[in-house]
Amino acid sequence: MPRTRLRNSTPPPGRSRALYEEFRARIAGSYAAGAALPSTRALAAERGLSRATVSGVYEQLATDGFIDSRPGAASRVATGVAGVASVAGAAGQRPATPARVTAANPPAGPLSAIGQHLAGLQLPALAVHVAGEIDFGYGALAGQDFPTLAWLKALRAVERQRSPRLAYEDPMGHLALRKALQAHLAQTRGMACAVEQLMIVSGSQQALDLCARLLLNPGDAAMVENPGYRIAHHCFEAYGARCVGVDVDSQGLRTGQLQALGAARLAYVTPTHQFPLGSFLPMARRRQLLEWAAQHRAWVIEDDYDSEYRYALRPEATLQSLDPQGRVIHVGTFSKTLSPQLRLGYLVLPPALVQAFAHAKRLSDRHAATGAQRALARLLEDGSYSRHVRRLRRLQQARQRALVEALQRHLGDQAEVQGTASGLHLVLWLHGLQASQEPALAAAALARGLRVYPLGPYFHPGSLAAARERPAGLVMGYALLEPERIEVGGRRLAEALREVGQKAGSRHR
Amino acid sequence: MPRTRLRNSTPPPGRSRALYEEFRARIAGSYAAGAALPSTRALAAERGLSRATVSGVYEQLATDGFIDSRPGAASRVATGVAGVASVAGAAGQRPATPARVTAANPPAGPLSAIGQHLAGLQLPALAVHVAGEIDFGYGALAGQDFPTLAWLKALRAVERQRSPRLAYEDPMGHLALRKALQAHLAQTRGMACAVEQLMIVSGSQQALDLCARLLLNPGDAAMVENPGYRIAHHCFEAYGARCVGVDVDSQGLRTGQLQALGAARLAYVTPTHQFPLGSFLPMARRRQLLEWAAQHRAWVIEDDYDSEYRYALRPEATLQSLDPQGRVIHVGTFSKTLSPQLRLGYLVLPPALVQAFAHAKRLSDRHAATGAQRALARLLEDGSYSRHVRRLRRLQQARQRALVEALQRHLGDQAEVQGTASGLHLVLWLHGLQASQEPALAAAALARGLRVYPLGPYFHPGSLAAARERPAGLVMGYALLEPERIEVGGRRLAEALREVGQKAGSRHR
Repeated sequence: MPRTRLRNSTPPPGRSRALYEEFRARIAGSYAAGAALPSTRALAAERGLSRATVSGVYEQLATDGFIDSRPGAASRVATGVAGVASVAGAAGQRPATPARVTAANPPAGPLSAIGQHLAGLQLPALAVHVAGEIDFGYGALAGQDFPTLAWLKALRAVERQRSPRLAYEDPMGHLALRKALQAHLAQTRGMACAVEQLMIVSGSQQALDLCARLLLNPGDAAMVENPGYRIAHHCFEAYGARCVGVDVDSQGLRTGQLQALGAARLAYVTPTHQFPLGSFLPMARRRQLLEWAAQHRAWVIEDDYDSEYRYALRPEATLQSLDPQGRVIHVGTFSKTLSPQLRLGYLVLPPALVQAFAHAKRLSDRHAATGAQRALARLLEDGSYSRHVRRLRRLQQARQRALVEALQRHLGDQAEVQGTASGLHLVLWLHGLQASQEPALAAAALARGLRVYPLGPYFHPGSLAAARERPAGLVMGYALLEPERIEVGGRRLAEALREVGQKAGSRHR
Repeated sequence: MPRTRLRNSTPPPGRSRALYEEFRARIAGSYAAGAALPSTRALAAERGLSRATVSGVYEQLATDGFIDSRPGAASRVATGVAGVASVAGAAGQRPATPARVTAANPPAGPLSAIGQHLAGLQLPALAVHVAGEIDFGYGALAGQDFPTLAWLKALRAVERQRSPRLAYEDPMGHLALRKALQAHLAQTRGMACAVEQLMIVSGSQQALDLCARLLLNPGDAAMVENPGYRIAHHCFEAYGARCVGVDVDSQGLRTGQLQALGAARLAYVTPTHQFPLGSFLPMARRRQLLEWAAQHRAWVIEDDYDSEYRYALRPEATLQSLDPQGRVIHVGTFSKTLSPQLRLGYLVLPPALVQAFAHAKRLSDRHAATGAQRALARLLEDGSYSRHVRRLRRLQQARQRALVEALQRHLGDQAEVQGTASGLHLVLWLHGLQASQEPALAAAALARGLRVYPLGPYFHPGSLAAARERPAGLVMGYALLEPERIEVGGRRLAEALREVGQKAGSRHR
């Protein structure tokens, strides 16, 4: 039987020759001078050759001057023959000190418009934690609140029932998770959607990014809540869109402003628990928002980030349920009930958008990691997720109550609390203080080992003048703190407030 | 001490009133007619009220006609008072049948240019598996090859050492993983880079997506290998770039063509093991590529997708190591050694690009999931990843050898194998067959329970005329198959080839 000719894998007796040529090519190619060759024993085992064959090839390479070969030491690529004599490192050698990473290095080529925008973008620093500080930051969860045992059990079960084929999966997400999520959303949110409309994403941030990319052209307007979730606005702006801040009051977005503001490609809203003010968008405003959207053929992104925590009657109907036209894109997350580090969220898409989103997700990162999706599906299916959420809701509500009581006790009628119907944060208004004094208050608090977060950074920069007329406010997250620490935090905040008030008072005298 | 006034949380004795108002607002708002209210017991427990208080509020709501209350049954929202009488579902009720998801639904609003492109994009179908078939598909790994025990051990350790704060992490990736990866790349690839240059991404697909977004403007040219990794090309084209196919031969990209093709914003190459042809880009061509890039201030993306499998001498120096100017972006993945379902890959970035990429990653999806990153760091640190790769390399090499031998045995000199120096696939050239006969061959194979994959779809569409002059070729992955099945596959392929050859012969007569 004739032999298949092989370009890169010649059968014996040509194998010595092939190995010799291969090494020559590599030395002429990318191999560094001084780089160690594998031992004849190791190479013989790896290539399925006899050790004598490999030794013969090494001898030939040494004779021809390509390598330096000494008995008892590793053969090394000879100096002056390697194509890459200056390469920084090679096997077993310490690489040379790498170039320092500094922002001062000019890029070796141009960035895209998106790239230039992002390179120059000022994003808030990541939250830091200093031991001993009391931190009313929002966004993080306490590690002790994670359902570690249930999660590990689910992970174990999933790892032990591994598919025989580890292939790329459906970009829309793992089917078992989407089915379990469909049932969960029907039960807890009264939502009616087909499994085909559900997409699993790497946290709600990816949902927003996909929306921005697929719906916004450079120059398009996007209506956003003001104050609002600024990182969503940054995401829209990264693709060249222009965010238009719409005011928010104690009933959420002031939809009456929309008509005057005119057309936009989309509106981004948090109707269940406005972020950060905490208001619930009432029916009349929901209708007004959807009418505006229909009139301008605009999309509505409903970010339902913390609805699992409604401390009141559940469920509220979603904006998505009110929308027969398929213009609401509903976004949900597991970052507030399990962990922001899991990177799992979801989209409920209008049917007409499914294909574009699936293609975008596939080209973005193929699909969400399968193991975590399958484990989460199990938690949803066997009821442990619901149990966990019920338990966590009680815990968070106790923390909220401790915070409200501490604020009552220490601040009295200087302050007013808003947005306690849901979620993991509230807004504290400070009547005696101007918005411009927020940084001073935060600094005075920090001097007392207390981290608080002014409302200022949540406002759209275009509206800062108007925002300055409001009283000072703080966004206070309580998910990281136990009631005793919350009580101490309330006391320290009152002290900081007194200090800032006295200073202001003495200046006015 | 004066009390804090609370907008959403009035203290007793107003709590009954507040609860009543809250329910009225919800019924006028988003609550559906017929929706069940929580039991008085449950609500009392949840809100920290006495059951009598809640019962009193329910009685008042019933008296006022907002709810229907019957002893022994759940109270329900009365018909005609709910703001959302038509909402599809509510707690505990089956939601109405959702709208069917069809591509026929016109979108309710406009898509962006990117969105329109993606909605209309023809992407290859996801791989399907039919039991009993022999599948020479490329990209999937065998579940049995995954290091389940080591992975589970690492996951368990990670879950048990959970951080007390589950906060958003560094978009560049978990520090322990980046440090372990830096050491791994220095040892196995001779790469010198700072930890600050390493970014963990959700698979190499996300690396390509970030590159496309940050480096390519609509209308820009991107040089790509032809044939090549088409999903990367789709990714560049999604952002409006124009891919220019550069021919590939047995030494990789024909860099001599670049000069005539002129300027481009970037070149995307697989120099270690060209995908799909399997060639190694020699030094002279590497230099020519980098010179072209320097001349045009173009970026070079080096996709190092399967270098862990070099069956020959390791490590080769990377293109990144040859580049003092910081214009090579090196992309790696764990999809070929662990699982494509893990969604873990990495970038080695030029220092000047770090900030733009970090901001883009943060706005895209915050960061890669923490648990998997920490588990992978452990595998790298304790040596189990290296052990796994060594084991897997032997396994895959045995499969490759079985495939080469089966092809020799059954196809003889009708065929030629290319690209066996690395990876999980090879290319089979069929001398007697035209490229245009590839689909017929695949169909004849499928009729015999054998899935093979023509080379045709890997070619850039702009070059199809030229591609038709080549002999037929197949891209044959072997990672899913044991040697006995590979042998059967070789036999079936020979049968299919005979059938196609006979049909072609009879047509020519």
